[in-house]
Amino acid sequence: MSSSMNDSIKHDSREGFHWTKKDGLKRGLPSSSVIQPGTNLQAHNNVYDTTIIGAGYTGLTAARDLTTSGLSVLLLEARDRIGGRTWTSTINGHQYELGGQYVHWGQPNLWRELSRYSMQQDIDACLDPTGGPNISTVLTKEGLKSMSKEENAAIMDSAFQKFINIDGDLGKSIMPLPYDPTLVSEAVHLDELTLKDRINQIQQDLEPLERTILEGLLLSLTGGKLETTGFFGVLVLWALCAYSLDCLVRAAAAFKLRRGQSDFARRFFQEALDSQKLSYAFNCPVASVKDRVGQIEVITKDGLHFWTKRVICTVPLNVLSSIYFDPPVRELSDDVLAGINSNQSTKLHVITSSGALSSWDGLTYPHNRLVHASGEGTTSWGDSHLVCFGASYNHIDPEDNIEETLAAVKIFHQDIDVKSMVFHDWSKDEYSKGGWCSYTATAATKYLGKLRASRGKVILASSDWALGWRGFIDGAIEEGTRAAFTVKTELAKEPKA
Amino acid sequence: MSSSMNDSIKHDSREGFHWTKKDGLKRGLPSSSVIQPGTNLQAHNNVYDTTIIGAGYTGLTAARDLTTSGLSVLLLEARDRIGGRTWTSTINGHQYELGGQYVHWGQPNLWRELSRYSMQQDIDACLDPTGGPNISTVLTKEGLKSMSKEENAAIMDSAFQKFINIDGDLGKSIMPLPYDPTLVSEAVHLDELTLKDRINQIQQDLEPLERTILEGLLLSLTGGKLETTGFFGVLVLWALCAYSLDCLVRAAAAFKLRRGQSDFARRFFQEALDSQKLSYAFNCPVASVKDRVGQIEVITKDGLHFWTKRVICTVPLNVLSSIYFDPPVRELSDDVLAGINSNQSTKLHVITSSGALSSWDGLTYPHNRLVHASGEGTTSWGDSHLVCFGASYNHIDPEDNIEETLAAVKIFHQDIDVKSMVFHDWSKDEYSKGGWCSYTATAATKYLGKLRASRGKVILASSDWALGWRGFIDGAIEEGTRAAFTVKTELAKEPKA
Repeated sequence: MSSSMNDSIKHDSREGFHWTKKDGLKRGLPSSSVIQPGTNLQAHNNVYDTTIIGAGYTGLTAARDLTTSGLSVLLLEARDRIGGRTWTSTINGHQYELGGQYVHWGQPNLWRELSRYSMQQDIDACLDPTGGPNISTVLTKEGLKSMSKEENAAIMDSAFQKFINIDGDLGKSIMPLPYDPTLVSEAVHLDELTLKDRINQIQQDLEPLERTILEGLLLSLTGGKLETTGFFGVLVLWALCAYSLDCLVRAAAAFKLRRGQSDFARRFFQEALDSQKLSYAFNCPVASVKDRVGQIEVITKDGLHFWTKRVICTVPLNVLSSIYFDPPVRELSDDVLAGINSNQSTKLHVITSSGALSSWDGLTYPHNRLVHASGEGTTSWGDSHLVCFGASYNHIDPEDNIEETLAAVKIFHQDIDVKSMVFHDWSKDEYSKGGWCSYTATAATKYLGKLRASRGKVILASSDWALGWRGFIDGAIEEGTRAAFTVKTELAKEPKA
Repeated sequence: MSSSMNDSIKHDSREGFHWTKKDGLKRGLPSSSVIQPGTNLQAHNNVYDTTIIGAGYTGLTAARDLTTSGLSVLLLEARDRIGGRTWTSTINGHQYELGGQYVHWGQPNLWRELSRYSMQQDIDACLDPTGGPNISTVLTKEGLKSMSKEENAAIMDSAFQKFINIDGDLGKSIMPLPYDPTLVSEAVHLDELTLKDRINQIQQDLEPLERTILEGLLLSLTGGKLETTGFFGVLVLWALCAYSLDCLVRAAAAFKLRRGQSDFARRFFQEALDSQKLSYAFNCPVASVKDRVGQIEVITKDGLHFWTKRVICTVPLNVLSSIYFDPPVRELSDDVLAGINSNQSTKLHVITSSGALSSWDGLTYPHNRLVHASGEGTTSWGDSHLVCFGASYNHIDPEDNIEETLAAVKIFHQDIDVKSMVFHDWSKDEYSKGGWCSYTATAATKYLGKLRASRGKVILASSDWALGWRGFIDGAIEEGTRAAFTVKTELAKEPKA
C-alpha cells in the first residue's frame, strides 16, 4: 500500500475535535482510519470461526493472524474507524496523532510488526533539540523558570532515580524480569504503593523543583493521579526500559511514524481483508455475548445476531461492563472494573503562530489543568506544533471547556498564540471512558491474573492487561497475538465442521 | 508441546563434541533439535510454493509463516537437526547451549516469538551474582588480579564509554536510529574504522587494565579480531541497547531459555508441520538453484531435483558460495563473501568439580588462546558450569587440540579441574565456517545493501544481513519474517496454478 494510496482514502470520522479561531469547535476529523464501505457483510447463515469485538491494534492483530491462517473472522467495531485509542488525522497536510503515538525498537511486539511491514526506517524523532531553541520551562510559585533541556533532564533523572530506587539497586534486584510476576514475589508488596506513597517515602531527599518535575513526569507517564495510581506499573516500565530514564523517554515518548499510526493500522486491516476471510462491520457496537453450548451468540445493539465458535473481546477495561456476558464475568464486577484504570488524561495538539516553540517544552503542574507540553516541530507553513498533556489530576475536558482550555495552554508560555487545536476527548468517549491503562495500586496483584484467565470460548484481550507494555500499542499487539494463537491452537483440535 | 514431550524426543546428532576425563573426545551429542523421521518426502511431482534452504531460525520462521498462511513449503537442511548455529544438548539432565543462547525483551523479533508461544516467563538468568562468590579475575603481566564483579563492571563501563563516545554524546547524536542506515549518513565514514583503529584514537585515555578489559569485551562480543572487525557493528549494537553497557550486557548476554533454544526452535517446526503444508528433508545439502524461467529448479548434492516458485536461501555468509546460483549472485563473489564475517570464535562448556566457580568470571586475553570465561551456575550434582569464549584472535579449534584446550582452560583459574567439556566447533563446521556474524570494517557500507537486495525469485535471508540485531537469533527471526512476508505478498499477485 503506497503512501499516496493512503492519502486518497481519507474519510471523515465523526470522532475527534478541531477548534480554530475562525470557526470555533467542530466535531469530526478526516482520517485514513475510516474504512469505507463500512461493512462487507452479506446475508450470513454461516458460523464464524471467530468474532472479534473491537478493531484497535489488539483486534486488528488477532483478525490478521487468524484470517491469514485460513480461519473466518467477523470483526465488529462500534466506531466508524480502525485503531481504537490510536488514530491519526491529517489536516491541511499536517499530521496529528489523537491517541497512541510513540514507537521504538524497545517495544518488541510493535517493532516486530513494523519490521514485518518493512517500516523500520519510516520513523521520525518527535523532539529534536537541534531543530530550534533548547529551552525547558517550569512554572514555580516564584514564576516561570527557564533552563536548558539538559538541565531539566538532569534534575528529572536525579529525582526519578531516588523515586525508583526501592531496593538500593535501582530496581534491578527486585525486578530482574518485568514479564514474570512470579519471579518478583519480593516485589509484589510494592503493588500496594501509590505514586504518592512512594513520594512520601523519599520526600526528604527531594528538592522542591525535583519534586515538581518528578510528579509532572509521573502524571504524564500514567495519565493518572498521585493518590491512586500504582507505583508497580512504573517500576515494570522502568525494568522494560533498561533501568534508565533516558531509555524510558526514548522508548516511550520520542519517536513517531512518519506516515502516522493509521497508515500502520491499515496494513493489518488490509492484510486481513486480502485473505478473503474477513467479514467486518463498523458502527456496530456489541450488546451481548452468550455461550449457547457449542457455539457463541453475539448480538449487536442494533439487534443483529451472529454465531461463532470463539469470541475475542478487545474492548478496554473501562467499557468491558457495557457488554452483557452470559455466563457472566463474575469476578470482574462493574465496581471492580471501574476501579482499575486510573487514567483520565487529556492529549491536546496546539498550533501556535511562529516557529519559536517548535522544540521548547514546559511543565505547569500543579498550577494548571494541563500538566506538560512540548514542541513537536514546525508545520509546513511555519507554525509551531505543540502537544499538551493533562492527567486525572485536575482533569479537563477540552470539548466542554474551550475557553478554559485556551487559558490553560496560555499558562505554559506567554508566546503561545493558539491558532488551532486538535484533540480526542478519551474520557468522554463512550468506547474508551479514559486513556491508556494505568493501574491503581493493588490492581495488578488482584486483577491482572483474572483478566488474563481462560474463560472457555471467550477470550478477553487488551493492552489493558498485557504482561509487558501494558497500556501501550505494544501491549495491544502482544494481546492480539496471544488471543489469535490461542484460538488457532484450540480450533485446530476441534473436528472440522 | 509439553516439556516432557520434548525430553522424550531427544535423538543423537552427529554434531558437537563431548570430552570427558574417562572417555576422551566423542563426536555427537543428544538433542531435541534432531527431527525424526529425517524426512517426510513422498513421491513428488508438485511445484512447491517455496523451497527454504536451511532450518535455522531464519528458515524455521519463514517455513512457519508461509505454511500457516496456506502455502506449500519444502524445507531442505544439510544437518540432521533444526536450529543452525543455535542448538541445545542435554546430557545427564544438564543443559548446554552449543551456539546462540541469550534472550531478552530488548531483542524485539525474538521476544515477539517467545511472547506468542507464551514463554515470556520461561527464562533464567545466566549469571547470578547472588548465587556464589562475587569474583572477577583478570590475568595481567603481573599475575592474576582479583576484584568484585562490580569493580570489573565499573572499569569496563568507563573504558567502553571512552571507546564508544565518537560524537561527544555517547553515540546518541550520530546513531539515533540504528535500524536506519540512511538516517546516519554522518556515521557512514565510521564503517571504515576497525576496532583497533578506534582503540588507537583513545589509547592515551586508557589505563592498561581498562584497555585489556575493553579489548576482551570487544572480542567476546564480536568473536573477531581487533585488526579487522568493524567498529560500526558495535556502535549499532550499542544504539540498539539504549546506549548503556548495563543494558547491552543484559540484552545480549544475561538470560537464557529455561528449556533451551532447541525446545523453542521445535515450536516453529511443529507449528509448520501441524499445518500439513510442510515437506522437509534433513541431511540434504543443496548444490544448486537455477532459475528456469517461470520456475526455479533446486538440485541437492544427492541429485534430487525439486521445482518451486520461490527460493528462500538462509545459509550463512561464509557458506553462501557453496551453492551454485544460476543466474549467479555476481556482485557477491567468493572473495567478497570470505571477507565479510570476521568471526572465528570458540564457545566451550566446561564442567569443573566443586561449585566454587559457579558465579566467578575471568579474562585471560591476551595471554591465552581463550579470551573470557564465566560461571553459569551449578549442575544438579554440585559441579560448576563454566562457559569459555575464544575469538578469531589466537583462534583455537578444541577438537584438534584437546590438550591445549585443557591447558587454556586451566589458565583462567588454578581451581579449575576439568571433568568434561561440551562444544561445537563452528569454524570447522562446513555449514557455518565461523561463528555469529561480525562484519569487518567497510563491509556494512559495501555489502549490506547487496545482500538484502531483491534478486527475482530467490531471496537471500539470514541474520548475517539483518538490519538490527545482526548475527543474533533476533536477526534470524527478523529475516525469516521479512522473507516470508515478501514471498507471501508476491505469490498473492500471481494467478493460482
